[in-house]
Amino acid sequence: MTWVEGAAGSPYGVHNLPYGVFRHDGREPRIGVRIGDLVLDLAGAEAAGLVLAAGALGQPTLNAFLALGRPQWTSVRQRIVELLTGPEHRSAVEPLLVPVADIELVMPFQVGDYVDFYSSEQHASNVGQIFRPGQPPLLPNWKHLPIGYHGRGGTVVVSGTPVTRPCGQRATPDGPVFGPSVRLDIEAEVGFVVGVPSALGEPVGVDDFAQYVFGVVLVNDWSARDIQAWEYQPLGPFLGKSFATSVSGWVVPLDALADAWTPAPAQDPPVLDYLRDVPHLGLDLRLTVSWNGTEVARPPFAGMYWTPAQQLAHLTVNGASVRTGDLFASGTVSGERRDQVGSFLELTWGGQEPVQLADGQSRTFLADGDTVTISATAPGPDGTTVGLGEVTGTIRPARSQP
Amino acid sequence: MTWVEGAAGSPYGVHNLPYGVFRHDGREPRIGVRIGDLVLDLAGAEAAGLVLAAGALGQPTLNAFLALGRPQWTSVRQRIVELLTGPEHRSAVEPLLVPVADIELVMPFQVGDYVDFYSSEQHASNVGQIFRPGQPPLLPNWKHLPIGYHGRGGTVVVSGTPVTRPCGQRATPDGPVFGPSVRLDIEAEVGFVVGVPSALGEPVGVDDFAQYVFGVVLVNDWSARDIQAWEYQPLGPFLGKSFATSVSGWVVPLDALADAWTPAPAQDPPVLDYLRDVPHLGLDLRLTVSWNGTEVARPPFAGMYWTPAQQLAHLTVNGASVRTGDLFASGTVSGERRDQVGSFLELTWGGQEPVQLADGQSRTFLADGDTVTISATAPGPDGTTVGLGEVTGTIRPARSQP
Repeated sequence: MTWVEGAAGSPYGVHNLPYGVFRHDGREPRIGVRIGDLVLDLAGAEAAGLVLAAGALGQPTLNAFLALGRPQWTSVRQRIVELLTGPEHRSAVEPLLVPVADIELVMPFQVGDYVDFYSSEQHASNVGQIFRPGQPPLLPNWKHLPIGYHGRGGTVVVSGTPVTRPCGQRATPDGPVFGPSVRLDIEAEVGFVVGVPSALGEPVGVDDFAQYVFGVVLVNDWSARDIQAWEYQPLGPFLGKSFATSVSGWVVPLDALADAWTPAPAQDPPVLDYLRDVPHLGLDLRLTVSWNGTEVARPPFAGMYWTPAQQLAHLTVNGASVRTGDLFASGTVSGERRDQVGSFLELTWGGQEPVQLADGQSRTFLADGDTVTISATAPGPDGTTVGLGEVTGTIRPARSQP
Repeated sequence: MTWVEGAAGSPYGVHNLPYGVFRHDGREPRIGVRIGDLVLDLAGAEAAGLVLAAGALGQPTLNAFLALGRPQWTSVRQRIVELLTGPEHRSAVEPLLVPVADIELVMPFQVGDYVDFYSSEQHASNVGQIFRPGQPPLLPNWKHLPIGYHGRGGTVVVSGTPVTRPCGQRATPDGPVFGPSVRLDIEAEVGFVVGVPSALGEPVGVDDFAQYVFGVVLVNDWSARDIQAWEYQPLGPFLGKSFATSVSGWVVPLDALADAWTPAPAQDPPVLDYLRDVPHLGLDLRLTVSWNGTEVARPPFAGMYWTPAQQLAHLTVNGASVRTGDLFASGTVSGERRDQVGSFLELTWGGQEPVQLADGQSRTFLADGDTVTISATAPGPDGTTVGLGEVTGTIRPARSQP
């Protein structure tokens, strides 16, 4: 039981302890861990000798800590739990607690490569039906490998960063025109943050996931559908995605999600050996998408066809290495029902079926000034709930054209 | 006239001065500039006060120097020319020269995002004819925008790094199988190294290329055609490319290529305003591809349909930012004739027409042990030649399967 007031029963109790990097009081960004509605200043804790992490907690990003590896991740976590539960530590630790309301979270890690998968069968089927009506909704490769592509690591931004409506080319019957995207969308996803680097030429096996991956963030892979539709053949999405990808400021460690593993959907046809994960487990993360405050969908991550362990094994099976700070995201999380989809493309079925928001407005795609917030929870130990924070962003008007 | 013996008349005279990062004598990597068959130790030169660059030359990568921007790039270059031409500097500088033969070049910069374009009309047409016979070889978008995609920045390696044959899935009539790629190929390209970062949301105009881009490297975008063919729909190349991308160890500054600019092919239909570069200039870089020592192709970079300034303008027009160390490559450089193509897919027309090498062997795709070397030259001032060094790699057998 933690001595931190209000933390017991919170989705951010000692069973969670997500890491972030925060600004407070005008000081440089520093690493902290959330407990209840407070943040424990881990840079201060390490400087005071309360926790030992080879100096990694004194850095302005999580990368050095991420690189330490699972034994250190676990021992630091255990020590933080001791500090927050042992009454004898209270006098030393309490001065290092800051209200969440008083901080600003910044980008928690420096992103190496960003890979985006496409691992929800429902999402891939929906997109196939919307874009290729009358044809088989899934392409022949989809059930044999986790389809993915590289996104832009340099434009991954922290939750709260405004998103400027991108300009670009879109097709019209009279040929392509240039201007602000008119079909700006979201993709609600879950991202996995790589801690330990792998060697070039050495695949990471499907059983080694937890040795390499530190934890989880929520991801909004903003997508300009009109730009994307015109550009993506034959080499895939590019400017339709690269203008911004938002991630939650809190990185939830895998250690906090031990009770969230759940059998993933059976895979038929059987997968090739290097993708066979036994047990075949996904994570029971329950996402919520809200649009200007109206909850519009609850995408269930547990239903993803490809698991994160399969994604990492696939990503590296050709010998590609991973680096500390690499981020790979699940792809849009969509369930079977319309109120479970993770994109507005699906929610409005290609923009044909507007949704009504609580303020009386109706929408197909994003309007300037709109705010989208994706949050999530997971089951924790002993009936607790693990909060995954949120990823939010507000659309700014396109940059005025020259 | 330089006082460095053998440098006058060399493609690495004072008109060139490419930058690299080298190991010598067991010491840590340091920045140098090539002059003739020697390397000037710039870390040593800056430490001795012979050149001033805010300490950037004392770093183990070029990134800090790249971030300084064009005025500093030019002033450092002018100072190096002074040092290498003024006889009064000889006694101070000569001890800082090391034979190229005695050094090992390491990766010259830390790569941020790696983007690969597809900007040769001949290459795109050849690929279209090989993969989609009977259909229009170019897709409808190709002449309206420079098609590109994000590759894997973390697996960009320096010339000389062995390339392990990747394993992956490939399609067979009986379904996909896993194993070493049997259609391992090259792509001879030219890469552009970003120095100055841009702000998120602020496009880089087509006229601002030289303010952001420091210089040029040669690129071999190794490609497993069988893996690529099976995976690439609908999100583009992924594991077929991500196992390794090799770059030359010498980064040739744009300042050395002032005489290499040449009118690029006329563009019809006209491009949208943001892509209109006046004058519309490409670079007259003359590539040579050798396969186990046999020269098999001479791809002419001057014929590329999309110019590097257009590529950068397109890459950022949606507001995507660039970072120091970002690399964008041209896409495979192919000319009109069969002996001008930059991939073996084209050289052997999809593997149907083997090529004969000088050692009597014939090849379609790469065999284990094969070495491919791409080199290039450009016209320099006053009839000189600018050498772009080379990017070379040898294929190692696939990792043995479990």
